[in-house]
Amino acid sequence: MEVFNYSKSQKYAADIDSIKEAHTRIIPYIHKTPVFSSTSLDSISGKQLFFKCECFQKGGSFKIRGASNAIFSLEDDQAAKGVVTHSSGNHAAAVSLAAKLRGIPAYVIIPKNAPICKVENVKRYGGQIIWSEATLQSRESTATEVQQRTGANLIHPFNDKRIISGQGTVTLELLEQAPELDTIIVPISGGGLISGITLAAKSINPSIRVLAAEPKGADDSARSKLAGRIVHLSETNTIADGLRASLGDLTWPVVRDLVDDVIVVDDEEIVEAMRLCYEVLKVAVEPSGAIGLAAVLSDQCKKKSYWREMKNIGIILSGGNVDLGILWELLKANI
Amino acid sequence: MEVFNYSKSQKYAADIDSIKEAHTRIIPYIHKTPVFSSTSLDSISGKQLFFKCECFQKGGSFKIRGASNAIFSLEDDQAAKGVVTHSSGNHAAAVSLAAKLRGIPAYVIIPKNAPICKVENVKRYGGQIIWSEATLQSRESTATEVQQRTGANLIHPFNDKRIISGQGTVTLELLEQAPELDTIIVPISGGGLISGITLAAKSINPSIRVLAAEPKGADDSARSKLAGRIVHLSETNTIADGLRASLGDLTWPVVRDLVDDVIVVDDEEIVEAMRLCYEVLKVAVEPSGAIGLAAVLSDQCKKKSYWREMKNIGIILSGGNVDLGILWELLKANI
Repeated sequence: MEVFNYSKSQKYAADIDSIKEAHTRIIPYIHKTPVFSSTSLDSISGKQLFFKCECFQKGGSFKIRGASNAIFSLEDDQAAKGVVTHSSGNHAAAVSLAAKLRGIPAYVIIPKNAPICKVENVKRYGGQIIWSEATLQSRESTATEVQQRTGANLIHPFNDKRIISGQGTVTLELLEQAPELDTIIVPISGGGLISGITLAAKSINPSIRVLAAEPKGADDSARSKLAGRIVHLSETNTIADGLRASLGDLTWPVVRDLVDDVIVVDDEEIVEAMRLCYEVLKVAVEPSGAIGLAAVLSDQCKKKSYWREMKNIGIILSGGNVDLGILWELLKANI
Repeated sequence: MEVFNYSKSQKYAADIDSIKEAHTRIIPYIHKTPVFSSTSLDSISGKQLFFKCECFQKGGSFKIRGASNAIFSLEDDQAAKGVVTHSSGNHAAAVSLAAKLRGIPAYVIIPKNAPICKVENVKRYGGQIIWSEATLQSRESTATEVQQRTGANLIHPFNDKRIISGQGTVTLELLEQAPELDTIIVPISGGGLISGITLAAKSINPSIRVLAAEPKGADDSARSKLAGRIVHLSETNTIADGLRASLGDLTWPVVRDLVDDVIVVDDEEIVEAMRLCYEVLKVAVEPSGAIGLAAVLSDQCKKKSYWREMKNIGIILSGGNVDLGILWELLKANI
């Protein structure tokens, strides 16, 4: 089974062919998520908004697209040794779920300080948890140790051609569901999602605008675009816990060359966008998932030269895995 | 335009014909809401669950179905005088929205103690608010006064043939989307929704089971079924603010004769079901909307003689209009 053909000289880690190939491969394992619209939110934003609800995706986020593409493109003998990842978030849950669907082991390195609900998701999908210290160094060295011991295939959360191609399948559905889009707004972290979405979107419609939405407390992508090189932040501070990673060498070229702009919003704007998602759309998103709506409602976006040209805007509600424990406690306390 | 034909002798306020007629009438004004499923919730409940997401309906609840059926079945000269209602909840918002769609005035009597978010919904849809005292007597006398002054048509939230027929259209969609259902669980308050759903469902499939889900602090329907007559409670106490009404003379016969059973759950079970809707389904329901899931997960339901026969269960997530203000305040305070 020869799956990816990147032998021809090409600039980026994925292309429309690898993304279409990924879609064919993963269709049995994913939901085609719905696109919601809301006259109330259209009137608040002054635009036509199309919300791609990846929070309803299997595992609660778009991550199953890349994870299932990677796992189902492994040769049988390779797959039998299992897969390993050292993300503690939605990617870890998605890798666990996709591995379960293929019937192979998933080894998930989780730092000791990971949020309980994310750990629970990994457990629910049968991932084998291996604890590490909180540092990236400890996570990576633990992953290497597991790889050497088991022969498992490492599935990086974003800096991996198979992952980028899988995440790009969002575009294939979205542009079929809402062909009138002139702009797509995508949360940015390590850049796997936005790279796949951009490569597919610009191939289908070269004039489409792709904007990254990034939290102020982890604005490495905006800084990288300005500096013309990958910028790493020494620390991040944002409610959007899914958006703290830095770009990788496979995602940076796409962000540098093809992503039109980065809209930076603060955490208060993210919470307000969450509120609108819950109260108007009735969709329970996580903070990282609401950031696209925050971007289009932000003053910063309205000041952009291209603001008036934005009419039909696709917004990726990327995930819904959030621990609202405090809310349930409060509600129960008031019974 | 002669719309409803109840001249033939019939036992109940609506039938499959009036419900199909309603569906044809309201299709341009409503969403065909999706049916969600979740392997996680199937495994928690041990059943196959099919969630009919009426929280995504226009106006945030199923109420637009009955309201648009009532309003679009008015003769033109009658419609021109507008409509009046004295519900403060989802029905008021739905009447305002349907009246706006028809281009006629909606007079909404709202008690001074109504929750702000419900009042906001009425305002957003252009309803004309007329304040009354909190008592039912004051609301009704204010409504009568408005009726006499304007000639507006009164649209009762549930004890109205047009409303019952409109709410019954949920069944037409649901049994097309999930024909395998053997049971449907429906929140019960005044009984408009469950009457319409039951009349349609038993007409399409006489062996289908329809269960009402009711909060312990407003368990008048369960008591009514036991007593064989409509029981009114002197007070109600439940987090499910949409489920506090008593049955009417048009809904009671359906509940008495055709609704198979009433499952009573407490508020803690409702909050737990809300949590599962948010955290697993990623659907932001109001407490009243989550009660069907609470019912199927309750110990009480597992003790029923018919529990083992329940396999494929439709659950109506009836609405999503809930004020989560405290959550956003907490999140913002922690930024």
